[in-house]
Amino acid sequence: MRKYNVAIIGATGAVGCELIKILEKRDFPVGEFRLFASKRSAGRLKGFKGTSFAVQALDASSLDGIEVAFFSAGSAVSKEFAPILASHGALVVDNSSAFRANRDIPLVIPEVNGYEARGKRGIIANPNCSTVQLVLAVEPIQRAWGIEYLFVATYQSVSGTGGRAMRELREQSLAHLEGRPLEKEVYPDEIAFNLFPHIGDFDSEGLNLEERKIVFETRRFLRDESLVLSVTAVRVPVFRCHSEAVTLITKKTTTASEVADLLRSAPGVRLMDGKDMASYSTPRLAEGRDEVFVGRLRNTLPEGHGISMWIVSDNLRKGAALNAVQIAEAALGLG
Amino acid sequence: MRKYNVAIIGATGAVGCELIKILEKRDFPVGEFRLFASKRSAGRLKGFKGTSFAVQALDASSLDGIEVAFFSAGSAVSKEFAPILASHGALVVDNSSAFRANRDIPLVIPEVNGYEARGKRGIIANPNCSTVQLVLAVEPIQRAWGIEYLFVATYQSVSGTGGRAMRELREQSLAHLEGRPLEKEVYPDEIAFNLFPHIGDFDSEGLNLEERKIVFETRRFLRDESLVLSVTAVRVPVFRCHSEAVTLITKKTTTASEVADLLRSAPGVRLMDGKDMASYSTPRLAEGRDEVFVGRLRNTLPEGHGISMWIVSDNLRKGAALNAVQIAEAALGLG
Repeated sequence: MRKYNVAIIGATGAVGCELIKILEKRDFPVGEFRLFASKRSAGRLKGFKGTSFAVQALDASSLDGIEVAFFSAGSAVSKEFAPILASHGALVVDNSSAFRANRDIPLVIPEVNGYEARGKRGIIANPNCSTVQLVLAVEPIQRAWGIEYLFVATYQSVSGTGGRAMRELREQSLAHLEGRPLEKEVYPDEIAFNLFPHIGDFDSEGLNLEERKIVFETRRFLRDESLVLSVTAVRVPVFRCHSEAVTLITKKTTTASEVADLLRSAPGVRLMDGKDMASYSTPRLAEGRDEVFVGRLRNTLPEGHGISMWIVSDNLRKGAALNAVQIAEAALGLG
Repeated sequence: MRKYNVAIIGATGAVGCELIKILEKRDFPVGEFRLFASKRSAGRLKGFKGTSFAVQALDASSLDGIEVAFFSAGSAVSKEFAPILASHGALVVDNSSAFRANRDIPLVIPEVNGYEARGKRGIIANPNCSTVQLVLAVEPIQRAWGIEYLFVATYQSVSGTGGRAMRELREQSLAHLEGRPLEKEVYPDEIAFNLFPHIGDFDSEGLNLEERKIVFETRRFLRDESLVLSVTAVRVPVFRCHSEAVTLITKKTTTASEVADLLRSAPGVRLMDGKDMASYSTPRLAEGRDEVFVGRLRNTLPEGHGISMWIVSDNLRKGAALNAVQIAEAALGLG
């Protein structure tokens, strides 16, 4: 079987660690394997299929010969190095937001628009984590009945910010429980036993960056630039997995029961449909799982058009690393 | 000044403790002061204006001579004892859900419909905590422009369940941080570093009890039985204060700036209106505060009709104890 020289840029971050695990678990055909991170992390060892790999500091020459690269080291790094690799014919799956707004670059969730990745080389953008789980659940509804209005409130874990934020939640929580003062480094507000509707900077219309991303990317996936979409993105004191309370109003009439029939066979979705309509997942239950869990699917007003649901997914897996690897598989025609 | 013989039923609970503090702080004209709780808590001492009061177990005769009673010991206790007191001409402010659905009993937020309490004796129902903060913020909008659709996602603290739930959050969090197994007693799911859309039992339409209460009570306060209202009620790992992400679509056109002008002078509301539209409160900031904080007020689609906001309030104060005392003040013509 053809093997590929693979690089992970940002290999010591929360998403990078997950990428290594997923490449191993899915038996991705890796030839050479190179791991990169910032100078600070250079020299650290990461295991892959029983071998230890030393993490290197990134420079342009260190990417020579790389055929498949996963970027998860922030927009600045992606903007600097991804185009170089792409110009050499490599496949670059970029987990930052650097290229998501560029119409010439595919933005891909394989279950939704995998055809845009097929056979492709160069840069493919991996969507925002909150977008992926939302779109997997609502895009089938858009195709079947059309969506008139879409309302989203998120409950986002600290792992979306990265390892430092996970430590901050841990340390602040312990300090609070022990009656010590809390120290803030990563977040603008205390995160221990607290929450705030502030994920990224606010723009002139009062949306924070995360909300802006979700609005922009969801419209792109739902192929409706003027979709009425209202999002409040909230950081919560949870380590891993994002949750979303979603209500949508469909154009054509439907019912929760018809939507359930559709989502039961939707790829990537695991419908929680206990007979009492009360089944749901939680962040703790979704940790380390590949599926996007859709629960509490129910009719809301207006009658025949209103549907509500509760969506939970592991933001580091389907929201990031898993989707990135699936994009590469689609591009290379694997699996 | 005329003084009243006051009883608190449920005096050792989270709301009961807050009631004692608020009666003291607002210098409520208390004559005799009697505190009641379950047999288990009888004999405990609570301080009020420098005096210690022993908590008693409740029976019918122990309420003789009481003129003002605050009930916060669950629906069953309210149903058994509130009507007896009411029949003797006492004022009963009931914090349970026992009488909220009864159209003959006023359901009161003093800033909204204080006139229904004025001069009243007998039972007055105190609304659900999540309803109070929602209604204080949106009722002025309903009066000015009319509300077509209302979408609410809540982030509710464990103190809404009571002291045992606060201990469970504390103990599970410590266990998680120390790598010990978590024990569940109060909640159906783990609450430490987790969350779940499950507050009270689910009904045949898939709504949990909290959602049902918010829908029912909000329609009553907004005087629109057919208001299109979709709610997802979620328990989060926060000790105190509830938050709500709210989007509404108005009937007549308006803007966030017009809504801000209105809410700036709305009683009980504290508008957070930094010039960048990004100001907001958090549960930690709202602890022990009387106001309902409305922040992140912004235009959302559809243009001219869509408004979003972030509402935070101390569920034990304005959501429960403070509103109850304000009801009594309105009924007795105090302040």
